[in-house]
Amino acid sequence: MLMANRDESVDVAALMSDLGRRARAAAGPLSIATPERKNAALAEMATALERNRDAILAANAVDMANGEAAGLSAALLDRLKLDPTRIAAMAEGIRAIAALDDPVGDVIAAWDRPNGLHIERVRTPLGVIGVIYESRPNVTADAGALCLKAGNAVILRGGSDSANSSAAIHACLVEGLERAGLPKDAIQRVPVTDRAAVGEMLKGLGGNLDVIVPRGGRSLVERVQSEARVPVFAHLEGICHLYLDRSAEPGMAVAIAVNAKMRRTGICGAAETLLVDRAEADRLLVPVLEALAAAGCEIRGDAEVCTRFPTARPASEEDWRTEYLDAIISVKLVDGIGGAIDHIATWSSHHTEAIVAEDPAAVERFFNEIDSAILLHNASTQFADGGEFGMGAEIGIATGKMHARGPVGVEQLTSFKYRVRGTGQVRP
Amino acid sequence: MLMANRDESVDVAALMSDLGRRARAAAGPLSIATPERKNAALAEMATALERNRDAILAANAVDMANGEAAGLSAALLDRLKLDPTRIAAMAEGIRAIAALDDPVGDVIAAWDRPNGLHIERVRTPLGVIGVIYESRPNVTADAGALCLKAGNAVILRGGSDSANSSAAIHACLVEGLERAGLPKDAIQRVPVTDRAAVGEMLKGLGGNLDVIVPRGGRSLVERVQSEARVPVFAHLEGICHLYLDRSAEPGMAVAIAVNAKMRRTGICGAAETLLVDRAEADRLLVPVLEALAAAGCEIRGDAEVCTRFPTARPASEEDWRTEYLDAIISVKLVDGIGGAIDHIATWSSHHTEAIVAEDPAAVERFFNEIDSAILLHNASTQFADGGEFGMGAEIGIATGKMHARGPVGVEQLTSFKYRVRGTGQVRP
Repeated sequence: MLMANRDESVDVAALMSDLGRRARAAAGPLSIATPERKNAALAEMATALERNRDAILAANAVDMANGEAAGLSAALLDRLKLDPTRIAAMAEGIRAIAALDDPVGDVIAAWDRPNGLHIERVRTPLGVIGVIYESRPNVTADAGALCLKAGNAVILRGGSDSANSSAAIHACLVEGLERAGLPKDAIQRVPVTDRAAVGEMLKGLGGNLDVIVPRGGRSLVERVQSEARVPVFAHLEGICHLYLDRSAEPGMAVAIAVNAKMRRTGICGAAETLLVDRAEADRLLVPVLEALAAAGCEIRGDAEVCTRFPTARPASEEDWRTEYLDAIISVKLVDGIGGAIDHIATWSSHHTEAIVAEDPAAVERFFNEIDSAILLHNASTQFADGGEFGMGAEIGIATGKMHARGPVGVEQLTSFKYRVRGTGQVRP
Repeated sequence: MLMANRDESVDVAALMSDLGRRARAAAGPLSIATPERKNAALAEMATALERNRDAILAANAVDMANGEAAGLSAALLDRLKLDPTRIAAMAEGIRAIAALDDPVGDVIAAWDRPNGLHIERVRTPLGVIGVIYESRPNVTADAGALCLKAGNAVILRGGSDSANSSAAIHACLVEGLERAGLPKDAIQRVPVTDRAAVGEMLKGLGGNLDVIVPRGGRSLVERVQSEARVPVFAHLEGICHLYLDRSAEPGMAVAIAVNAKMRRTGICGAAETLLVDRAEADRLLVPVLEALAAAGCEIRGDAEVCTRFPTARPASEEDWRTEYLDAIISVKLVDGIGGAIDHIATWSSHHTEAIVAEDPAAVERFFNEIDSAILLHNASTQFADGGEFGMGAEIGIATGKMHARGPVGVEQLTSFKYRVRGTGQVRP
């Protein structure tokens, strides 16, 4: 597939408007497609990815060569790279989405009224989803499959670095749609790399885009959140806190702290700040910091922490608001659960926070008084993930409070409507 | 309470920004207030309304005199007018809201993971709600009480016509909050009539407003929907359809048509278009139109309808897109359930549609293929109401698909978060 060059005179506004109209037209039949037909399309997509493996790898080789020539970092090149294992994982990911329960038509609630009316609230697709992402080509497959499962049309706008890889993957998705008899416009890909295309999506494509999901770095999410005229499911950052209460079991505190920070430092659910109850700092602080340091973590502490653990570097206020995404942790002593709640209320990004405690009263205050998407007790913050929640797959994690919050899986990509069954009732 | 005149040099932006900050500060303690405390405040509010009845009536008399002097229509003056019965109804409405189940903390879903993690999704307040309304002073009491029940702070911006009445009612709500020990800023009222205050709310008060609910006529809702930078729960119009299938029982068709159109013509759930299955037009059309005409309804029909029912006036395309809110109905013959679905897909405002049918296949197609907030079978469209749905009260009806849809009651004024309970789990 040829990519239109940003220097060509493509009318991006007209092109995007057409994509929006096609998506809206596809959303109608898609919203009433049977689970069997959607699953057949997903199975065909997985098979098509496997069958077209060599073509995908060839397209990816072009992207890799372009990326090396453009001087992309080793980390970016690793995200971009596909190999047979990664392609097989994409196909398996699509099969796993097919195996999920179909959310559309699910009766969420049902009740009877005294006048005999029977009311049901049932899930419906949302409509048209826009996904704006960066260099990982596998997002093309994941996001396309998730949106289809929930009965939504989707417009995918991947980064220019992965344009050839994404186009090759997208061709497999369209092949799956067509083999199953679903409209090919159900999964469209923006065929130009011009950034103006993103601007058109943020304006909502004339009412033909219902929600935008940005997947990528801070600057992308920030732009989408500040400019979008349609709802956005996203998190800007994950400043996740781990609080060790005076009642914490020390061995568990060490294990959870090391896992929450160091298992993978670059994910949004990694802990960035450790809060330790001053009342039991002697028992908890030093063993935990020694274990973190031994695992290769830099410690940045407040004045008290630096006194008790002299190899710590001093933390400034800036540290409390920083998502390191690296082997660095900020550490502070607090006055019990109340002090932890106050610090989190001030600095949290409302993504994920965890408490290690044996005292049920402390846990209940933590659960009730902190308003973040995910709160965990005696478990690592790194469980903040749709797969770990049993949702099968996620299109992202949202920290907003409207519609979707926490991991965004197929259920969160739906709306609902009311079905009311009567026997001739009229309103008095 | 004195009202600042729009000619006074009030810094509206600074005033509204301060209201937003106060609301956000109140939302914290409010979100963890116990059901008992919130219900105590609601009970105190109801009592305060009754105790201050004479003061409210005196304030209302000022508004009525101003309204008469300004030449308000009889309909507007009727909406504005309070009397002892209406004040008693407001107090009873607040007591009914107190009697509802408290949504905050309600466990919506719970499941266990193979690794032993127990996950709960629990309801939380949304945060700060803005309500923008016109002349009905009772919205002050209803909206304030509903938002409080769901643990939200609210900023009320009523119309200038009812400013004195709303101020007097608002004083009673604040009295209730204070007597129950809740922050008085939980329910604030915009104390100026300057329209710039609405503009500040639409901009979101610097992140301190989470959602806006407009209550009023089309021009208000249109402005809010087009300009708001925060989510909006609203419907612009209710172009509600009633479809009489070939399988309809004629007596039921007559009763439901007359009720759906004529019970109250000015509400959003009133039917505006009648679709009749051509296959049984002989049996259904004329009796239904005769009953509507006998009830005082003007009939506007397509060519076929006018032939069969000569007193009908001819309908133009404009009629299919018009919400009359009056004793007028547009009528069209369609080719069965498929024709009805096509007409509704083209012209509906996605509010409420009803089918009268005995054929289950037609009903299932109607329920599955139409994407409106409320679908009814063998019941009047006028049941589109939170009270009739058993929600106790509603702040409005939403036709959007994000977060809230259909009647917006206390549940729809909440968000959710996840609580995860572990026993030391770390992620492999």
